[in-house]
Amino acid sequence: MLYSHRILNTPPSFVRSILAAAEDPDVISFAGGLPNPASFPLDELQVSLDRIMEESGDKLFQYATTPGYEPLRQYIANKYNRLHQLNITADDVLITTGSQQALDLIGKAILNEGDRLIIEEPGYLGAIQAFSLYQPEFVPVLLEEKGLNIPAFKAVLDQGDVKCMYTVPNFQNPSGLTYSNENRLEIRDIWQGKEMFLIEDDPYGELRFRGEVLPYIGAENPQYSILLGSFSKTVTPGMRLGFIITRNKELMHYINVAKQASDLHTNIFAQYAIYDFLTHNDYNAHVDKIISMYSQQAEAMLDSLNKYFPSHVQYTKPDGGMFIWATLPEGQSAMELFKTAMEKNVAFVPGDPFYTNKTDVNTMRLNYTNSMPEVIEEGIRRLAGVL
Amino acid sequence: MLYSHRILNTPPSFVRSILAAAEDPDVISFAGGLPNPASFPLDELQVSLDRIMEESGDKLFQYATTPGYEPLRQYIANKYNRLHQLNITADDVLITTGSQQALDLIGKAILNEGDRLIIEEPGYLGAIQAFSLYQPEFVPVLLEEKGLNIPAFKAVLDQGDVKCMYTVPNFQNPSGLTYSNENRLEIRDIWQGKEMFLIEDDPYGELRFRGEVLPYIGAENPQYSILLGSFSKTVTPGMRLGFIITRNKELMHYINVAKQASDLHTNIFAQYAIYDFLTHNDYNAHVDKIISMYSQQAEAMLDSLNKYFPSHVQYTKPDGGMFIWATLPEGQSAMELFKTAMEKNVAFVPGDPFYTNKTDVNTMRLNYTNSMPEVIEEGIRRLAGVL
Repeated sequence: MLYSHRILNTPPSFVRSILAAAEDPDVISFAGGLPNPASFPLDELQVSLDRIMEESGDKLFQYATTPGYEPLRQYIANKYNRLHQLNITADDVLITTGSQQALDLIGKAILNEGDRLIIEEPGYLGAIQAFSLYQPEFVPVLLEEKGLNIPAFKAVLDQGDVKCMYTVPNFQNPSGLTYSNENRLEIRDIWQGKEMFLIEDDPYGELRFRGEVLPYIGAENPQYSILLGSFSKTVTPGMRLGFIITRNKELMHYINVAKQASDLHTNIFAQYAIYDFLTHNDYNAHVDKIISMYSQQAEAMLDSLNKYFPSHVQYTKPDGGMFIWATLPEGQSAMELFKTAMEKNVAFVPGDPFYTNKTDVNTMRLNYTNSMPEVIEEGIRRLAGVL
Repeated sequence: MLYSHRILNTPPSFVRSILAAAEDPDVISFAGGLPNPASFPLDELQVSLDRIMEESGDKLFQYATTPGYEPLRQYIANKYNRLHQLNITADDVLITTGSQQALDLIGKAILNEGDRLIIEEPGYLGAIQAFSLYQPEFVPVLLEEKGLNIPAFKAVLDQGDVKCMYTVPNFQNPSGLTYSNENRLEIRDIWQGKEMFLIEDDPYGELRFRGEVLPYIGAENPQYSILLGSFSKTVTPGMRLGFIITRNKELMHYINVAKQASDLHTNIFAQYAIYDFLTHNDYNAHVDKIISMYSQQAEAMLDSLNKYFPSHVQYTKPDGGMFIWATLPEGQSAMELFKTAMEKNVAFVPGDPFYTNKTDVNTMRLNYTNSMPEVIEEGIRRLAGVL
């Protein structure tokens, strides 16, 4: 056979494969997970670019160390210590080429073929794709209004060893749902004492419209806790900067080896640029502007869904982040709906790629961050017309 | 087991693990494969940064398509068509996060555990590391003055299926050797008709001090030929831009899926910046300046080796690139020598990590591109003192 088993069993990304079609200016796209370009701090980044060129010259363009730019790692450590009382150091942080790469590096470091891996149902399609390359046995656990279905989670752990669990605890992709504090504590108690890594992927956590910041499930279990973060949703995705936090030194060693093998190190120019931006601007005020924009866009989408969608279509009401998850009546295929919707120039992601073992599901993901309110209303109107 | 078999069997990078020690200002390092920072076109890059910020704004910071920035891919296709008569299109080019990532993506797309993979002996340590994650059976074939040992190469192919061969045909890393035209033709003829991918990794090809450009071995075998290139050695490594060229559409599809899963796409800001630099400057004149600098540095090292080293130490005389390969008398361990050399504040890479099945070898890699001539002389003098 010319190609690897792993690649033959890895799904192409539905989102990426329709990216070109969705970029047609006639199409209103709720498909991607793109930040609103109005959120990019262009003027501030211009100032940062000028300053780093002036101050750091050669260092921006030379090979750099694998874990990443030390001041940036220290900045991240300080921030997580301050906001989440984590007690980490710069050595517990490794900079990745976007948080997508974090998934690949973790797959490389821990997954053997057939290892059981718990994933939310529905789960993030990028994680399903990244982990598929390492051929685990996906074990989906139902995600509900308040978080993971606890009896199902407990049953999976009781059935035998689980290598790791992948979660997006805040404003989950694709559902927009957030784990309640109570749900987190229940998961923590059941997980306690088990040799299972818990990956909490949190690219949207800062984009909270309402409610309080909730603690990471793994905050008190340093040996098995892995946190992922990203600058893609608050500064820029184009520069591909994410990070892995773990206090497990042995795991971090193996992730570092995987990073060496994968791309040596993350673009060092970008690390200097983002670090300069973060340390010379009022970051909280910048994030507040994004929150204000996205909460208005979310409201616009919810209002439009309320106005145009029939009452038998259900949908989530996110407290933050970028997505709403809609559920059509039982038996209706969102993939079929996608085809007719595209004929009307409106795009979304049908639920299929968010499941590891189901097709022709009746669910769909709607992104509201990349269109302004009046465009959102028009898109939802078009979509309602083909329901 | 908490970690994967693959990571437990992947060697950490020797070069990366001593990078911090070698950065001590008291140490003269011939260890890395770092370009001379004097080769970075800082002024021209500053102009390009200003121009892309002015002209492209948002697009520099948003998510982008997986294969890479289309004008950059077209530029690369045009260049290879012009210089190497390849007849490729932009669709045959995929931009990677440095050419190290190209190795990882190819490993993902084609390697199954136990697949036979031919690698030069000695071979590039970054390739050994990247491919190790996919657990092939490495089959080393001796690299000699004029290229691959042909009887050994033929014998390996006669023994059974080989999934792929990895080569650095120009100014090889670590040996500095270049495959002769005759050697290339012999390899091509033996390979012809076999279901074996041939990866020609060519980051140094443009840095030729003397002699003529030689054709790629795979130029006429589009189904099984994979070429890798990089901007790391001619513009900047810090921005991590490399590329894969293959005319095999099916392979390119799988590489694209692997790229989606690995990091979605390469830093788009960097792609715009490098494309702007390439298209607004006299690139050939820029490369000529690097060649002039490196050929002087190579001469300085060869002169110093001639002056200070005992005659029983042999070394290669490269026609380009970044490395000289020295061979100590039989039975002497370059790894042991490394330890005493570091005490005298001079670093190099002992041969061990360039072999898949040998340790305590008597060979070593010397890099001359990252030190000026007088520093090179002092470093070789120190090294000779501990021989």
